[in-house]
Amino acid sequence: MGLNKTLPTNPGDGKTSYANNSSFQNVVISKTWDLVDETLRNMWEKGGLSDYCYNMVDLGCASGPNSLSFVTHVIHAIQDLRKNSNDSPEFRFFMNDLPENDFNSLFKLVENFNDGKEVVCQLSRSGCFVYGLPGSFYSRLFPRKTLHFAYSSNSLHWLSQVPRGLESKNKENIYISITSPPEVIDAYAEQYKRDLSTFLRMRGEEMVPGGRMVLTIIGRRFEDPTSKEVSRQLTMLAHTLLEMVVQGLLEKDDLYSFNVPVYMPCQEEVDYIINDEGSFKIDKIVTFPVRWDANKLVDELPFDKNRSGKLVANCIRAFMEPLLVSHFGKLMNCDDLFRRYAERVGEHLSKERSEASYVVHFFDYEI
Amino acid sequence: MGLNKTLPTNPGDGKTSYANNSSFQNVVISKTWDLVDETLRNMWEKGGLSDYCYNMVDLGCASGPNSLSFVTHVIHAIQDLRKNSNDSPEFRFFMNDLPENDFNSLFKLVENFNDGKEVVCQLSRSGCFVYGLPGSFYSRLFPRKTLHFAYSSNSLHWLSQVPRGLESKNKENIYISITSPPEVIDAYAEQYKRDLSTFLRMRGEEMVPGGRMVLTIIGRRFEDPTSKEVSRQLTMLAHTLLEMVVQGLLEKDDLYSFNVPVYMPCQEEVDYIINDEGSFKIDKIVTFPVRWDANKLVDELPFDKNRSGKLVANCIRAFMEPLLVSHFGKLMNCDDLFRRYAERVGEHLSKERSEASYVVHFFDYEI
Repeated sequence: MGLNKTLPTNPGDGKTSYANNSSFQNVVISKTWDLVDETLRNMWEKGGLSDYCYNMVDLGCASGPNSLSFVTHVIHAIQDLRKNSNDSPEFRFFMNDLPENDFNSLFKLVENFNDGKEVVCQLSRSGCFVYGLPGSFYSRLFPRKTLHFAYSSNSLHWLSQVPRGLESKNKENIYISITSPPEVIDAYAEQYKRDLSTFLRMRGEEMVPGGRMVLTIIGRRFEDPTSKEVSRQLTMLAHTLLEMVVQGLLEKDDLYSFNVPVYMPCQEEVDYIINDEGSFKIDKIVTFPVRWDANKLVDELPFDKNRSGKLVANCIRAFMEPLLVSHFGKLMNCDDLFRRYAERVGEHLSKERSEASYVVHFFDYEI
Repeated sequence: MGLNKTLPTNPGDGKTSYANNSSFQNVVISKTWDLVDETLRNMWEKGGLSDYCYNMVDLGCASGPNSLSFVTHVIHAIQDLRKNSNDSPEFRFFMNDLPENDFNSLFKLVENFNDGKEVVCQLSRSGCFVYGLPGSFYSRLFPRKTLHFAYSSNSLHWLSQVPRGLESKNKENIYISITSPPEVIDAYAEQYKRDLSTFLRMRGEEMVPGGRMVLTIIGRRFEDPTSKEVSRQLTMLAHTLLEMVVQGLLEKDDLYSFNVPVYMPCQEEVDYIINDEGSFKIDKIVTFPVRWDANKLVDELPFDKNRSGKLVANCIRAFMEPLLVSHFGKLMNCDDLFRRYAERVGEHLSKERSEASYVVHFFDYEI
């Protein structure tokens, strides 16, 4: 894992792909639609949608069934808004992720998602055009003052890189944990501040006056970044890796030098960074919890620790595998690791139905 | 090969990929740069570039080293134009091809092409943003009146589908040939007329007043569509396929039902369609020949029939293989076919240095 590079999720549509293991993210996304609709309606009523052509972006769309949720949902919302209007504005939808993202699969989904008919043509007939946008959202992605609506769900916890200066200081931890030294905690917080500020500055340059932004970010409920609740999933992954080190299956040095480039902020931290950076004004904040093993298909069934353990392990694997393989190299047996991890998580969930904490920020851009 | 589907070139960066066998196309492209520069300069001087944000598209960019020629060349041209100007407009570059095109490889090229540095960031710093645009150029690709400059090289000979009603009427031919019955020739010409008219109508809806379009199209010098010069490459491929049928390696019925969805028009035909459709005005037409075995790396070397035969065969294979495999199925041994084809082409070229005929159309859009 280089300092200057983050990696995309597992590509393709195989058993361990992000595409087939993103039902947790789907639960998160669907909880925000009513609020997105309200924002769009609000933009429309205030005349924020009075131009003839609108640019909308899904930042960090990845490649899977969820990737199209934004486009399809927003198109339907817009069609509703148009019903009572003589205007027929047109829309560019930009699907953004890192250049290494599986855009080929994504574009096939776009082509096929409407019952196998050529939806690209249908979209264009209804004035909606879909484009791929390869690039980091910590850089400029659009010309100045051209972006009307920016959306991101479950992506902004990814840092632009592993924080500098961690070396092997974090020892057996792979993220912030109760045993992380203060300089590790500071390095993570600093990197997050730098990254989120850059993100806001870039979007600020790109937004049109009256533009809106909706960001759904996984965070922590408590100010203390070492609180168990925050980092337990990654701590349990660290414990599983350590178990494999002890059994001689992985190198200790590799574990000591491995740190995951994510950060889960508390609300106060995000507020501070937004105010400090100054490009955007927060309109509204909504928080909600989501169970680790949330999955629409099985939510009605009685709890089963094996199933829940596997759901969580598959979800974590879909985005962790590229990082793990890149760092640990050939020694890394992901089947073995995530089998152990699934057991560990299943045991944990049988004692406590843990939840992740999500915060949705609604921004006005009126500068 | 379905009626409603065309296929992209060979993906990836292997020996038979389009990426590694597109030096012929590179020769064609580089012959047009001076004229593209002139068009951009002209737009700039006439104030056609006085907006703050420009949309440019490469229609049918495929995936290979040539795919970036347009973007890199135009960026340099624009930087030159900007030197004596206080304006600093920004640019969106759209890379268009069918959704099945290898956009993953294309986006990696975009990321790496500037000596391995992160060119996406560098591009964005200079106000140039690159997007992927999956979709057929025979459909709408952009919102109304938003496109400033459309460019296409070596793509518009692809029809949107195999002409309707050919069934097995074309027998041992795979394109128009001297032995093709008149209804086959008519079906091809009709399909081309329909497709090019659709293309022009779509672009006409998308163009801003003062916008420009530069199209480089492979064509034929003679009005007679069965003249040898036009279709010889494909006729020789048909003969090679027939040889394999005779030897029991391929099915005769498969050959009889195979027709390549391309068309090489004569100048009069194109002019008629453009005037008849009416969206665009032709500003200038330039024609030039390109030798079948044109390749910058070996053009200085003495002729070698084996090398030239292979160059042509590899170039044809890069775009024909997906079609052949899709139509002939498992029986199709492309290594065998293109080894035979290379020999045949080499023999031919040792008797006659055949050339393809290219026409560049420069369009004004001032409606």
